[in-house]
Amino acid sequence: MDLNADLGEGFGHWNLGDDDALLAVVTSANVACGFHAGDAGIMRRVCAGAAERGVVIGAQVGYRDLAGFGRRKIEYELPQLRDELIYQVGALQALAASEGAQVQYVKPHGALYHAVDHVPAVVEATMAVGLPLLCAPESVLSTEAADSGVQVVFEGFADRAYRADGTLLPRGKPGAVIGDTEEVVARALLMAVDQRVIALDGTVVPHNVDSICVHGDTPGAVTLAQRVRAALESAGVDLRPAV
Amino acid sequence: MDLNADLGEGFGHWNLGDDDALLAVVTSANVACGFHAGDAGIMRRVCAGAAERGVVIGAQVGYRDLAGFGRRKIEYELPQLRDELIYQVGALQALAASEGAQVQYVKPHGALYHAVDHVPAVVEATMAVGLPLLCAPESVLSTEAADSGVQVVFEGFADRAYRADGTLLPRGKPGAVIGDTEEVVARALLMAVDQRVIALDGTVVPHNVDSICVHGDTPGAVTLAQRVRAALESAGVDLRPAV
Amino acid sequence: MDLNADLGEGFGHWNLGDDDALLAVVTSANVACGFHAGDAGIMRRVCAGAAERGVVIGAQVGYRDLAGFGRRKIEYELPQLRDELIYQVGALQALAASEGAQVQYVKPHGALYHAVDHVPAVVEATMAVGLPLLCAPESVLSTEAADSGVQVVFEGFADRAYRADGTLLPRGKPGAVIGDTEEVVARALLMAVDQRVIALDGTVVPHNVDSICVHGDTPGAVTLAQRVRAALESAGVDLRPAV
Amino acid sequence: MDLNADLGEGFGHWNLGDDDALLAVVTSANVACGFHAGDAGIMRRVCAGAAERGVVIGAQVGYRDLAGFGRRKIEYELPQLRDELIYQVGALQALAASEGAQVQYVKPHGALYHAVDHVPAVVEATMAVGLPLLCAPESVLSTEAADSGVQVVFEGFADRAYRADGTLLPRGKPGAVIGDTEEVVARALLMAVDQRVIALDGTVVPHNVDSICVHGDTPGAVTLAQRVRAALESAGVDLRPAV
Repeated sequence: MDLNADLGEGFGHWNLGDDDALLAVVTSANVACGFHAGDAGIMRRVCAGAAERGVVIGAQVGYRDLAGFGRRKIEYELPQLRDELIYQVGALQALAASEGAQVQYVKPHGALYHAVDHVPAVVEATMAVGLPLLCAPESVLSTEAADSGVQVVFEGFADRAYRADGTLLPRGKPGAVIGDTEEVVARALLMAVDQRVIALDGTVVPHNVDSICVHGDTPGAVTLAQRVRAALESAGVDLRPAV
Repeated sequence: MDLNADLGEGFGHWNLGDDDALLAVVTSANVACGFHAGDAGIMRRVCAGAAERGVVIGAQVGYRDLAGFGRRKIEYELPQLRDELIYQVGALQALAASEGAQVQYVKPHGALYHAVDHVPAVVEATMAVGLPLLCAPESVLSTEAADSGVQVVFEGFADRAYRADGTLLPRGKPGAVIGDTEEVVARALLMAVDQRVIALDGTVVPHNVDSICVHGDTPGAVTLAQRVRAALESAGVDLRPAV
Repeated sequence: MDLNADLGEGFGHWNLGDDDALLAVVTSANVACGFHAGDAGIMRRVCAGAAERGVVIGAQVGYRDLAGFGRRKIEYELPQLRDELIYQVGALQALAASEGAQVQYVKPHGALYHAVDHVPAVVEATMAVGLPLLCAPESVLSTEAADSGVQVVFEGFADRAYRADGTLLPRGKPGAVIGDTEEVVARALLMAVDQRVIALDGTVVPHNVDSICVHGDTPGAVTLAQRVRAALESAGVDLRPAV
Repeated sequence: MDLNADLGEGFGHWNLGDDDALLAVVTSANVACGFHAGDAGIMRRVCAGAAERGVVIGAQVGYRDLAGFGRRKIEYELPQLRDELIYQVGALQALAASEGAQVQYVKPHGALYHAVDHVPAVVEATMAVGLPLLCAPESVLSTEAADSGVQVVFEGFADRAYRADGTLLPRGKPGAVIGDTEEVVARALLMAVDQRVIALDGTVVPHNVDSICVHGDTPGAVTLAQRVRAALESAGVDLRPAV
């Protein structure tokens, strides 16, 4: 099982999350590429830290929206979006290379992760850079990407509520984010060991994922991520990058 | 002799210069990389046009300054600047690759071209991406780059005044930019055929350049560039990329 | 009848349209406020020119989207949008004041003009700055603004197709923009003299507007605007600001 | 004696400092205006909090440089800089007004605070908006502003080292920032009660200031600011806005 987290999400003078602490927890780092968060200096530093610890580097690509942290849908024309995604991946590739590392997958961020009508741009960009794509199982994105021959890596969220059809409850809905540490750890174990998740309606549904996403940008997030990792290790789960 | 020009210097809804017309004139295109001008869509389109015509692609890198078009010195810390330059080159590399082309050199833009104290950042970034550097002969940048093992390509400006020591008269000074078409064409010929330039004080000084820069962003610029090309071809100068 | 146009839509080194020529045509200038176009220097210059010619100044407010020229919907949270609109109006007010002029109305730009779910933010911002609002008759925006006590100024578009219910055919649809000069002039006259417009289906529908919008950012636009003004003057229409 | 601090220095998803805690300490709030930090939502919230607590609002204006937090000198042309400063003040004025408050002074931020060649732009902008200017005594800015008829408010820094001529030791120099809490408190008292400061060379020099600046963006900063306020109150210093 892979553990991934969003890293390098500061900008200039502003920090977000504890990149160093998370690099000690995860096996894959989704590095923000400067459009919704991140800047060149941060990107290089996270790449250096990841390379040092053997953490795999992914390009966390998003809308051009520093003011909204990429969480607001923007009605892009698809070719412009595709090109901006390629731009972001290339920028990270050059910085990773300057630290002797390489970018090994793409992960769309924020509103782009869920934007069904922007799926073609994400798929085309991912094909253009020739990398695997980290996305949600049962999503339009995962289906379209797979149909286009893109290698798809499925991720689950231990701290997010799921519906009975295996899809995520959107972030704005009540109960969408699970705050209780013990419950998050239990859900991570259920995903990693049994490939299942307990849906909102109480049913236990299959949830076959290659990677579990942990978050690092909220108070206590690093501790929670460390708890998830420790629990998975105790359960004998083999933690290693998905790509 | 190489002919280079700055291309792709629009942004979003705004255009600057006639990229298509210039692609028919030059042998090398300095493509703006999005920090002082250019965006991902423009970059891809210029790369596509260059690839189609066999024009060599260079990364025109600059300060993060859309509002000032990169013409204002910004007091960067050197590591941050170096990383932003690598970022820009990488972004262009990915877009060029998506059009089956590749980036073959780096050219600093605007105030960065002349910023002596920023030379280490330009040299380090150029070394990191492993490309040649287009710069002015007799400049601190050219010396430092060459001393660091970077392949240096010298460029001259047919429409700019030179001092007797072979350096450019800064853009703000009276007479720095030469507007007369015949004079510009004559100066281009003198550079290409005799490797000389007539300095401000009237002396004829050696000016050994590999590339002549033509501009495309002013009224009549394309016509002037076409005139320069025609004159060089008439004089039997072999026009081809410098790298 | 008022004639309004979008002005000051350049940014930094980039120009768009011929502000000086349009200032000689219009009675009201919608000055871009820096979020989708425009910068502080341009804003001051347009205010100075407007003040000199007795042209009324309006705040052309939009999404934070220089890359998309404000033409792409962004899924803002309403309070953030409201605050950004107030910010833009205030910025223009201070620059106008520095030229001895004042801002006299608000006009939303691009995608914001049509964003039904963003109407509350536009209305709240307009109320906060205590100015009239330039908008389309029969629009949700005009109704909500009027219901909130905002003074509403109705504008029509001589170069845009209308549906039989008096609403605009969206810009992306075939035939949405009318290119024929004679037809645009004729439609302007029909609006100004008879308060009517010929809808797509051929029916002549009432269209009671206080202002006609002319565009300045396309080739031939200034000439067209001049033609519209001359035709209205010949027909004895009294051209003066609507506020 | 006035106590001022920089507030509202987050941006979008990023926070910096504890605005609420500082609003309980200071008598004047320098509110960042969106060019080097701050956004419209943050600006309104800080204005609301300041109005509620009777804290005076100032416009903390800076270079257009979110990536550098306004700490990097940018070689602006003076008219453009002046206009951008007016723009920022106006934006804050409108947001303050929407909360029933008003902007009562201007304070340049970061590199602009010290940029001698940018003094004319700061003075012209301050004159244009008709507000007092918060700046350092003995500075070129204070002299030029006073000579132009601008009301000048002098501020001192309890946590910064001074030279014997009464000027600040630049931030980059060793010992420029004083970290010891007791020492900072003692220096604040010396400034407030005796109008003096102990210079680097040990001499005690006159330092007649109207306001003491406390910082809020570093760990422990709020506690330090609270300590300074408590010490001044204990010493019977009357804390109230300088304007």
